[in-house]
Amino acid sequence: MAPAHRIDCLQYAAWSPRIFEEMAAGGLHAVHATVAYHENFRETVARLEEWNRFFARNPERILRGRDAADVRRARETGRTAIFFGAQNCSPIEDDLGLVEVCRDLGLRFMQLTYNNQSPLAAGYLEERDCGVTRFGREVIAEMNRVGLVVDMSHSGERSTLEAIEISERPVAITHANPARWRETPRNKSEEVIAALAAGGGVMGFSLYPHHMKDGGACRLDDFCRMVAETVERHGAESFGIGSDLCQGHGGDVLAWMRDGRWRFGKDDSDSAEFPPQPEWFRTNADFPNLAEGLRKVGFNESETDALLGENWLRFFESSFTPRDE
Amino acid sequence: MAPAHRIDCLQYAAWSPRIFEEMAAGGLHAVHATVAYHENFRETVARLEEWNRFFARNPERILRGRDAADVRRARETGRTAIFFGAQNCSPIEDDLGLVEVCRDLGLRFMQLTYNNQSPLAAGYLEERDCGVTRFGREVIAEMNRVGLVVDMSHSGERSTLEAIEISERPVAITHANPARWRETPRNKSEEVIAALAAGGGVMGFSLYPHHMKDGGACRLDDFCRMVAETVERHGAESFGIGSDLCQGHGGDVLAWMRDGRWRFGKDDSDSAEFPPQPEWFRTNADFPNLAEGLRKVGFNESETDALLGENWLRFFESSFTPRDE
Repeated sequence: MAPAHRIDCLQYAAWSPRIFEEMAAGGLHAVHATVAYHENFRETVARLEEWNRFFARNPERILRGRDAADVRRARETGRTAIFFGAQNCSPIEDDLGLVEVCRDLGLRFMQLTYNNQSPLAAGYLEERDCGVTRFGREVIAEMNRVGLVVDMSHSGERSTLEAIEISERPVAITHANPARWRETPRNKSEEVIAALAAGGGVMGFSLYPHHMKDGGACRLDDFCRMVAETVERHGAESFGIGSDLCQGHGGDVLAWMRDGRWRFGKDDSDSAEFPPQPEWFRTNADFPNLAEGLRKVGFNESETDALLGENWLRFFESSFTPRDE
Repeated sequence: MAPAHRIDCLQYAAWSPRIFEEMAAGGLHAVHATVAYHENFRETVARLEEWNRFFARNPERILRGRDAADVRRARETGRTAIFFGAQNCSPIEDDLGLVEVCRDLGLRFMQLTYNNQSPLAAGYLEERDCGVTRFGREVIAEMNRVGLVVDMSHSGERSTLEAIEISERPVAITHANPARWRETPRNKSEEVIAALAAGGGVMGFSLYPHHMKDGGACRLDDFCRMVAETVERHGAESFGIGSDLCQGHGGDVLAWMRDGRWRFGKDDSDSAEFPPQPEWFRTNADFPNLAEGLRKVGFNESETDALLGENWLRFFESSFTPRDE
């Protein structure tokens, strides 16, 4: 029997042929790759240009992911489909018309806000969250129309609940964990997870140390028991993996994520480093460890497949098509 | 005795040599001219380029206003000093470093938001107002440092009160009226006006029909009695004129102000027109009518001078100097 589709719905690694090899070693058929944190439209296009070079130079490893069929094609040809997404609304700047343009350029996910207040909604690091704004409502409607998924991973609680309510198509939280497991405002409340699942959305469990109990010392067993408990509470169809793997990046990238251009970075900001990953998930090649861990806590084969890709694949299937097609 | 300095602290007319002549006819020594509603940095620079052509071609009528001394110079040479300001934070985009750059380019006022939520604060048309954001606090501190005035004319109530509290230098509301006179969320509550005045700020009374009792049918006498009552409540030092004169613009400009790029304009949006001005304030040449009206409701000469320019001049004096100069 052919293996199921394996999808990691959020990474921002320092992309290279070696990492594409690791994707193959880990059996990944699709990866959602971040192309913007604070990048404006033109800067996002430059990231896409870099990807075009990667596609041209690594045709035996990767291909461009535009819809669910590309995930199947990737599996059939032993490759990984790369889907683009933005962790912020910076690529559309102040321009509603750029939503469709970004979708045409291949973006399939866009967060309404990254940590801070944006013109669309509030990020989780703002002291207060007033929900989705006037512009935000226009953007959600347009994203729904063109088939660009609303991702609320870094948004505040109220903004997330409102976006789920306002959006006429299911919303994603590509990378986060339940706050009941690791209490941080970046993780999600039971109320948010329940609303997401009720609306047909999917949440990707994160393997980023700051989102996990005990950080980088988190045990695979602990992680998988959290998955089992979450599935028990909210159902098996609404979850996948969004590892948030940031492999190979240095403090300069961390400083860009944190400070963007909205504040003057500290002079020593590039002394900050990414936290070390748990030893059972350091590269894409470690993805099979998750299957093993999930089986050990009691998931059967088809449940494991659902969590490691088939749920995301079903979500891709229904989310990327423009409404009028 | 030389006439006092006359200042209109907000206009966005369809600038032309004829309008510069009307400024002279109205005895105006300074006008704060809007250079951005939704314009991003590069587009704002293009507006400044247009002004550079106006300055080069109309040296007998206008000069560039950079500080209070330029208002005096304008009066001494029978001209009008043009001070630049933005009605939105769009010129700084997502970039804190652009605050100083915009100040260097001549901007002396910047609103934190125009009607809608911005990355800095909430506009008065948002349903909810969560106040000044993380980025907003950075921007206010930087504006304070470089000598760029925080203008809260189009902001929400809570954002305005917070900006007044956070800003270490006096804040301006360049163009608005008290909401007690014409009840609209665009006008200001007594609480806002009191806080502004207590902090050393100045509010410019607006002559835009939608801000006035009875709109374009408002009588000069009514307007001046509102001024008298406001001065009685909040003191004589905290008020001036910010007429919001939008002379000569058509529906295309109105559509830009309202819709920017954040929503798709209605197909018939350019059928909207600016409301007609009251007959006693149609052009800059009508400015002397205000002096006459104020005298009629009982203001003496020096009070009238304070309201028609000297208060703004004092504000200019202390507001445009970088903190470290």
